[in-house]
Amino acid sequence: MERHVGPVSPLATERTAVRPLGLDRVRITGGFWGRWQERNRAVTIPHALGWLERDGSVDNLRRLTTADRTAAHRGFWFSDSDVYKMLEGIAWDLGRAPSPELSAAVEALVGVVARAQEADGYVNSYVQAGHDGRWEHLAISHELYCIGHLIQAGVAHKRGTGRDEVLAVARRAADCVVRDFGNDRRKDTDGHPEVEMALVELHRETGERAYLELARQLVDVRGRGVLEPAGHFDATYFQDATPVREETTVVGHAVRALYLLCGVVDVYLETGEQALLDSALRQWRSLTATKTYLSGAVGSRFDGEAFGEPFEMPQDLVYGETCATIAAIMLSWRLLLATGERRFADAIERALFNLFAASTSVARDAFFYSNPAQRRVARPAAPTDGTPPRAEAPGTRPHWFRCACCPPNIIRTVASLGGYVATRNDDGIQIHQYLPSTVDYGQTRLVVGTRYPLDGRVTVTVDATPSASWTLALRIPGWCRGATATVNSEPVEVAGDYLALRRDWRAGDVVVLDLPMPLRLTVSHPAVDAVRDAVAIERGPIVYCLESVDQPAGIDLNRVELVAGEPLVEEFREDLVGEPAVVAIAPGVLRDDSAWAEIGWATLDEHPRPSGTPVRLTAIPYHLWANRGPSVMRTFVPIWRGSGPSNL
Amino acid sequence: MERHVGPVSPLATERTAVRPLGLDRVRITGGFWGRWQERNRAVTIPHALGWLERDGSVDNLRRLTTADRTAAHRGFWFSDSDVYKMLEGIAWDLGRAPSPELSAAVEALVGVVARAQEADGYVNSYVQAGHDGRWEHLAISHELYCIGHLIQAGVAHKRGTGRDEVLAVARRAADCVVRDFGNDRRKDTDGHPEVEMALVELHRETGERAYLELARQLVDVRGRGVLEPAGHFDATYFQDATPVREETTVVGHAVRALYLLCGVVDVYLETGEQALLDSALRQWRSLTATKTYLSGAVGSRFDGEAFGEPFEMPQDLVYGETCATIAAIMLSWRLLLATGERRFADAIERALFNLFAASTSVARDAFFYSNPAQRRVARPAAPTDGTPPRAEAPGTRPHWFRCACCPPNIIRTVASLGGYVATRNDDGIQIHQYLPSTVDYGQTRLVVGTRYPLDGRVTVTVDATPSASWTLALRIPGWCRGATATVNSEPVEVAGDYLALRRDWRAGDVVVLDLPMPLRLTVSHPAVDAVRDAVAIERGPIVYCLESVDQPAGIDLNRVELVAGEPLVEEFREDLVGEPAVVAIAPGVLRDDSAWAEIGWATLDEHPRPSGTPVRLTAIPYHLWANRGPSVMRTFVPIWRGSGPSNL
Repeated sequence: MERHVGPVSPLATERTAVRPLGLDRVRITGGFWGRWQERNRAVTIPHALGWLERDGSVDNLRRLTTADRTAAHRGFWFSDSDVYKMLEGIAWDLGRAPSPELSAAVEALVGVVARAQEADGYVNSYVQAGHDGRWEHLAISHELYCIGHLIQAGVAHKRGTGRDEVLAVARRAADCVVRDFGNDRRKDTDGHPEVEMALVELHRETGERAYLELARQLVDVRGRGVLEPAGHFDATYFQDATPVREETTVVGHAVRALYLLCGVVDVYLETGEQALLDSALRQWRSLTATKTYLSGAVGSRFDGEAFGEPFEMPQDLVYGETCATIAAIMLSWRLLLATGERRFADAIERALFNLFAASTSVARDAFFYSNPAQRRVARPAAPTDGTPPRAEAPGTRPHWFRCACCPPNIIRTVASLGGYVATRNDDGIQIHQYLPSTVDYGQTRLVVGTRYPLDGRVTVTVDATPSASWTLALRIPGWCRGATATVNSEPVEVAGDYLALRRDWRAGDVVVLDLPMPLRLTVSHPAVDAVRDAVAIERGPIVYCLESVDQPAGIDLNRVELVAGEPLVEEFREDLVGEPAVVAIAPGVLRDDSAWAEIGWATLDEHPRPSGTPVRLTAIPYHLWANRGPSVMRTFVPIWRGSGPSNL
Repeated sequence: MERHVGPVSPLATERTAVRPLGLDRVRITGGFWGRWQERNRAVTIPHALGWLERDGSVDNLRRLTTADRTAAHRGFWFSDSDVYKMLEGIAWDLGRAPSPELSAAVEALVGVVARAQEADGYVNSYVQAGHDGRWEHLAISHELYCIGHLIQAGVAHKRGTGRDEVLAVARRAADCVVRDFGNDRRKDTDGHPEVEMALVELHRETGERAYLELARQLVDVRGRGVLEPAGHFDATYFQDATPVREETTVVGHAVRALYLLCGVVDVYLETGEQALLDSALRQWRSLTATKTYLSGAVGSRFDGEAFGEPFEMPQDLVYGETCATIAAIMLSWRLLLATGERRFADAIERALFNLFAASTSVARDAFFYSNPAQRRVARPAAPTDGTPPRAEAPGTRPHWFRCACCPPNIIRTVASLGGYVATRNDDGIQIHQYLPSTVDYGQTRLVVGTRYPLDGRVTVTVDATPSASWTLALRIPGWCRGATATVNSEPVEVAGDYLALRRDWRAGDVVVLDLPMPLRLTVSHPAVDAVRDAVAIERGPIVYCLESVDQPAGIDLNRVELVAGEPLVEEFREDLVGEPAVVAIAPGVLRDDSAWAEIGWATLDEHPRPSGTPVRLTAIPYHLWANRGPSVMRTFVPIWRGSGPSNL
């Protein structure tokens, strides 16, 4: 097997339409994501390491080897997972580029974990401190979830650095799980899926089949009411109400549902059981067509951090957890590998450039846990040196959370982003995401130059190539109309989901792909009541929003409507909020709602449409919102249909 | 002071525009509410008494006098309040009509409470069982909340029966609170307001000024961060972020916010402090204009059972707790007494006939805790002999709840409903709510005959009258257009909010008021995104809904739109679901959403409005939904604007 530095390295080749190119092969060389990767290392990782010490997450493990062993556990009982996700994030970042400091940080952290680990491999700081019994409350204990993250860290560290320290600790923990759960020795599983995909990755890294078998077992036992309901957490919440092969849509806690499906696709990729892929595709389709926001947010509900019903998509009260969108990216990536279909790369792009990018401040040291699509009233800023009491997004991004799942998840995703850009198969190389980068595979070296998404020109220069014919495939995004391309300045026809250029490539060949990205107005599915008769502004992959700070004084964004027949105007801003951006100037109307001061409803035939005064609205990329203090914000804006009688 | 059998008996007369007529003076003689009062006694009260034994609420108190004293408390730590609300409900029902069985039930229950009560008057089964210290965790302990309900029970029993047993127990508890809190001996208060209005009522019943002073003190201390935040519960949740005199809108937990305002108005009514009334009026206006659903639901959010921001009114995920609407009725009633203004009676009517009526099954033995305005997917029926795990409404009404606040609240409201119907002042008698009833005051006796709201004719017969001139005032509901009236068959002019008829009335005089109630289409405030470009059907005070069980086979209510230009047709059903009702037949369209099967959004100019096929939709009164098993339901329906290009 070829070494692959990145998440998801299928061993079996017959079920992958395309195979991943790792972040050692796809290097991000600049632009928005390149800057973020630099700040991820320079700012976010040290920031998070500091907080993991401060919030007790590291200390919970460290203390197990001291006289203070049974002191009260700090933070949530699954805080170990934050440490492991950090380890994974640093490991991928080391795979991207060496760093003595980060290597030392890994060494220190894994030392803490290794010392905390029991002789038989078990490790869980909450249980070991005596707050619970081993595997006694699997529905809520997150024991396998935490070990799953440890395994992912070990796999990432091995792939990223070739070193075994973390993997060895992870494998001892995995072996403990195999001994206790394998061969159906237990009939239950963890309330929070995660370990399934981790075990498959460990199987890939070690060749040990017991890990794959256990992953399949844990996928299989779920959905049969094996988990004990706990308070608000019922079988649906845990994905334990319906066996995964029979499930038709994503239900329950969003991160759990999507992590589970990642494991399901991973098991499929290694075993070929078609029913698993079918279920994942069915659920992905339902997710995408009925439960995904324009921003890529998934999981509508605060209550249970859960998916809602189809088309239940409130804009103001959407939960839209950052981790859920990351999980959706992880799932789409696996399905892209399985199928090679553009729709999965489109979904990754939408999620990355919008909700995922919005999750983090441009300074890269503050984060949203939940991500509203509309903010009616400016909320107080987050505490600058503390953690907010609840997951609901405050007026600005908090620096940390009591439940700190999202920041390390962001860190590992940014660090491994190169692993989500391009793939290969026997026919050639496929580029799915456009960002300044180099792609090296075998004798081939490609240089991708682009300002995307500031504009839609992508230049791919063949720096080196074998002397055989192969196909360069470039994704034509689903949002794009009228794409054109040239090879060495000669126009080529653009058709299909990918521009597939099969040639005897030569060094120095240049492909230019032009993806027109005029500002456009987007409507939602007609069953989405929350945004009926409203539009969002988009440009290329970017979803826009109106933020109060950009509007003329006195404009209440709760009363604006958009004049949809008139042109939108682009304005380039070199430095909007520390990042360059194209803003959209849109013709709007400020509605006069004064007739409604006393009452919330009226009889239709007594209700003239309110009058309004023209206003010039400024829309910015949604992912840049809330970088200038608390604000009012909306992505969808009602369509202005004039004042006067309700012309039925 | 005249004896008044009903909630809210202001001692001071100078701040009441109108004064209440008790349920001994206003007797409901039939119709929808009369039938409910009968079933309230015959079905709901025994049902609830059974459940309070079964769920441990009574036993928690009973056990305090046994060897089992410190056994684990069953249910929530504030379960005493359910017992007290039951006592209050039975007390009002005894005021309505004697019953040896119910008197015996009161005697038994109050005996349990009296035996549980400490020598110094303190009573709280959770604290007394040793699970917490007295007044130690007031932010969450509900100790004053529970005692408040005990006081209300004592006052109701005294007013309803003239007896002192319950009042004596309540007063001992109140005296204990006065000793520990009065004269600013403590600077904090209960996290859940309730005791404020109870103390004012106790002051009214006893003349003891210390209770009123303490009520004012507890109103005053709040809003200054005196309560310790606990988990999700922050100062806003508790109404502890802003002093009540400075607050501009209702915030936080809906029931708490409205119970607090009831206390605020009660304190105003006795002390005359204008700033208190001003705050209550300001908050009521914000509540009504920006945070009340068409059904009378208030409190949008599951998270914190809380008010949302203005116009944050999801239809599917609305919390809409039954207790919150009851609290809104209690507040509106107090403001009606203070001002005599129609808007408060209108609000009571809307709440009563819609959300409140919907809270209970027509069999009157099952209840909704939260009340959706839309149900996208039929949910499983509630357990028939158990309590559902969460407050979210299942497919049918559960018979009981672990947090059983709503059923006894419904019981006490139905039992005391006669107390919310009519008022008097020096000028005469005002009738605010129309239902078959008799009104007796002094030498006056009125007989109100009506099928309202099945039709809009109200006949008031003067059965007896003093030989002086006085004014009969009849509310002209805010929804009504073209009301007409006659006195002894002679037309009289109808103008203003109340038809005010000043005459030398004679026995045998007959007033006939005709309130036309054609089916009408109602739109919401333009800032309510959740129902933009949609209409609800209303008729008189009744809000309608579409329920799947009434539609032709194969009609998915998530895809129907309403053709607003065409006539709606009434059909009378003698027995719709055990109650007579006027149903509405509406012209609709079943939208063809098949073009959207794969994706949730589209570019506006590529997005033709979907085509549709005509359908005949049947709408029923919202309050009768979910009486025929799990269903899909919606109150607002999109307006059909034709297929084809999005005609901007």
